Amino acid sequence: MTRPTPLSGFPEWLPEQRLAEQQVLDRLRRTFELYGFSPLETRAVEPLDQLLRKGETSKEVYTLRRLQAADGDDEQHLGLHFDLTVPFARYVLENAGKLQFPFRRYQIQKVWRGERPAAGRYREFLQADIDIVDRGTLPAHYEAEIPLVIGDALRSLPIPPVKILVNNRKLCEGFYRGLGLEQPEEILRIVDKLDKIGPAAVSVEIQKAGASEAQADACLALAAIRATDASFADAVRGLGVEHPLLDEGVAELVAVVETAREHSPGLVEATLKIARGLDYYTGTVYETELTGFEQFGSICSGGRYDNLASAGSDVFPGVGISIGVSRLLGLLFKADALSVSRPVPTAVLVALWTEEERAASNRIAAALRARGIATEVAPVPAKLGKQIRHAERRGIPFVWFPANGEQPDQVKDIRSGEQVPGDATVWAPPAEDMTPTLR
Amino acid sequence: MTRPTPLSGFPEWLPEQRLAEQQVLDRLRRTFELYGFSPLETRAVEPLDQLLRKGETSKEVYTLRRLQAADGDDEQHLGLHFDLTVPFARYVLENAGKLQFPFRRYQIQKVWRGERPAAGRYREFLQADIDIVDRGTLPAHYEAEIPLVIGDALRSLPIPPVKILVNNRKLCEGFYRGLGLEQPEEILRIVDKLDKIGPAAVSVEIQKAGASEAQADACLALAAIRATDASFADAVRGLGVEHPLLDEGVAELVAVVETAREHSPGLVEATLKIARGLDYYTGTVYETELTGFEQFGSICSGGRYDNLASAGSDVFPGVGISIGVSRLLGLLFKADALSVSRPVPTAVLVALWTEEERAASNRIAAALRARGIATEVAPVPAKLGKQIRHAERRGIPFVWFPANGEQPDQVKDIRSGEQVPGDATVWAPPAEDMTPTLR
Repeated sequence: MTRPTPLSGFPEWLPEQRLAEQQVLDRLRRTFELYGFSPLETRAVEPLDQLLRKGETSKEVYTLRRLQAADGDDEQHLGLHFDLTVPFARYVLENAGKLQFPFRRYQIQKVWRGERPAAGRYREFLQADIDIVDRGTLPAHYEAEIPLVIGDALRSLPIPPVKILVNNRKLCEGFYRGLGLEQPEEILRIVDKLDKIGPAAVSVEIQKAGASEAQADACLALAAIRATDASFADAVRGLGVEHPLLDEGVAELVAVVETAREHSPGLVEATLKIARGLDYYTGTVYETELTGFEQFGSICSGGRYDNLASAGSDVFPGVGISIGVSRLLGLLFKADALSVSRPVPTAVLVALWTEEERAASNRIAAALRARGIATEVAPVPAKLGKQIRHAERRGIPFVWFPANGEQPDQVKDIRSGEQVPGDATVWAPPAEDMTPTLR
Repeated sequence: MTRPTPLSGFPEWLPEQRLAEQQVLDRLRRTFELYGFSPLETRAVEPLDQLLRKGETSKEVYTLRRLQAADGDDEQHLGLHFDLTVPFARYVLENAGKLQFPFRRYQIQKVWRGERPAAGRYREFLQADIDIVDRGTLPAHYEAEIPLVIGDALRSLPIPPVKILVNNRKLCEGFYRGLGLEQPEEILRIVDKLDKIGPAAVSVEIQKAGASEAQADACLALAAIRATDASFADAVRGLGVEHPLLDEGVAELVAVVETAREHSPGLVEATLKIARGLDYYTGTVYETELTGFEQFGSICSGGRYDNLASAGSDVFPGVGISIGVSRLLGLLFKADALSVSRPVPTAVLVALWTEEERAASNRIAAALRARGIATEVAPVPAKLGKQIRHAERRGIPFVWFPANGEQPDQVKDIRSGEQVPGDATVWAPPAEDMTPTLR
């Protein structure tokens, strides 16, 4: 076998990076559960027709085939899910009778997209989603709760501050309709390109779509509004456009911004240019900037959707957001901005005098483990210096020397060189050395 | 959209089952880390030629194709991994320069097999693997360590007792060769069918493979040996067969059994009929019986492999074991033998007097969460009885009534009906109600 090489677009972490990733996931989970979100996992595959309900994503889907499937086999066509929202909507429909609504769940899983890999764009990546769905109607206050959860979750990590940018589809659609523009989705799609192509080109495109220059200017003026409090509403009203849907959208967005401002000032900013590409959003939309990494785009996005899941007259509106975990960690690892205090779980290496005495070293290890101290026994009864170097190379902070003749048990902090008598039923490392911690 | 139906072979848990699964995984992780195993994840896909190196599994592989791939596209053929050992071996080869050996890792991930689904046989399922690999040579004592880890891990769960059955490939091969049989792998494959077809049919097949009746009888006599201590070695020697490889295998298996006996009597039993289907094992092999569920087969299997990973003169022998998590949980859920103390993470539902007072209820929720108490706010300001019934249906044990006029904050245990004054900066539920627990 020749030495294998990485597959482009399929990132794999080193063990110490995976240790960091797990601690990140543990903290996200912890926050999600503090807000009452239940854990959920769905299968990795969905029927292909489900995945292709939105034509625009069809090019991204990986389809599956059993290697030994006979040509005549009439098996259902399956594909790997490309996000966690579509499978979740399907799960809710399938299990509606067994769920309590409003249903709050979080879901942390890999997703796959067959896109051409690029910097920060993977073919396999980990997402952490939260959603709240209700049966029939979903109160708008849930759109204000999502940023609180995500704010708490991301601020539980030793990463740069985040800012959650929010907008509201009703606000934009109402504004465009109030202006007399009858193709709000098209306008939204054009405005979404603002950061990429600039205001002049956006204006040209909006006019090409049938608007006057004045109407295009008004759309750009709306998109330019930003505020971390309800003052954005005055700025919108100052543009002199009126429409019932606009009023509804403004009121909802005011609630989102003000709820967040009470919970954590500076976390949320009404930013009326953000649109989100996917067209299933119908209310609040979210994007998230990581301070110092703004140029890499949103690390956490989502919104409210009213029409993603329905069966007959049963509708399940929802609101949710998704943290792009692999993307976020890829950025932070590359910038050396996130790591763990040691590369292995192990706190103690128990030395070994001879292979015959392995049982004695095992007993010490078992006593330490029983008290929650992660412990390994030395691989071979090498010279003591070699055993210590093994611990050093692995990043294990303590080496335990079992009793040897007259000499009782001793434990050495190999970083400081300090060596003290040890009793495996009593001794413990300092709290900060118990487990690896994120930093 | 019509209501979707489950996909055969792709199990999905209900939220409370997923809650149980997560707690199981947390406990497994905890034990693995106590033994110094580092977490690792590999990508879900491998190049198809890697997956097909062992011809016998080829029929199980799901291959991948981008839906929009053009016919001329010269992309590498990819398949979903069908276990975690093959990807791990590849990962070790790929990253050998960045790893410290012996390298201990655990890996908890989904795997996929395109087999026809059946009771307890899934097409997508979760495995939890531990492996220890070294560069060049791997000391045999690691084969004795694996059952200790697995014993501790499985005994950390509220499930029936387990018994780890062990055998050794060298012991069997040495015995067969000592008998004069020169096709030990074929004999092993036949003996592996013992439980399915019975000793008479096994004897016939062994004789068909070129053995005499006496040789076949000796093979069956070996396969009949079981013991929870080193006495199995006397039984083997009593069969009067001699071969250096047999002696080596017996010595290794004695070490495995005796090490486990010191650590936890009754956990491990030498069971000389077990063989394991996959042919890459070269030393100790493991299977695991769950008391009361023996008829469903092994829930945790593995062994030592010397030839799974090599590049040029660099070889990486290893030993590992894999818990079939989905299979185990599927059995336990079906038998109502594993659940959580409540179906949601939430401990407290904060009631809501009016929608205008939501900010006050939010503040109480935030104060409780800040102290680690999982809390939700009521969906709507319904009548109090309805809010309490909502908590009941969700399985939330406590309802918090915010101050109302003269009345200060109160908190009610809705199971007992007991209601006491509450201060969100001080009050906590009893320890057993802080989080859902496995039972």
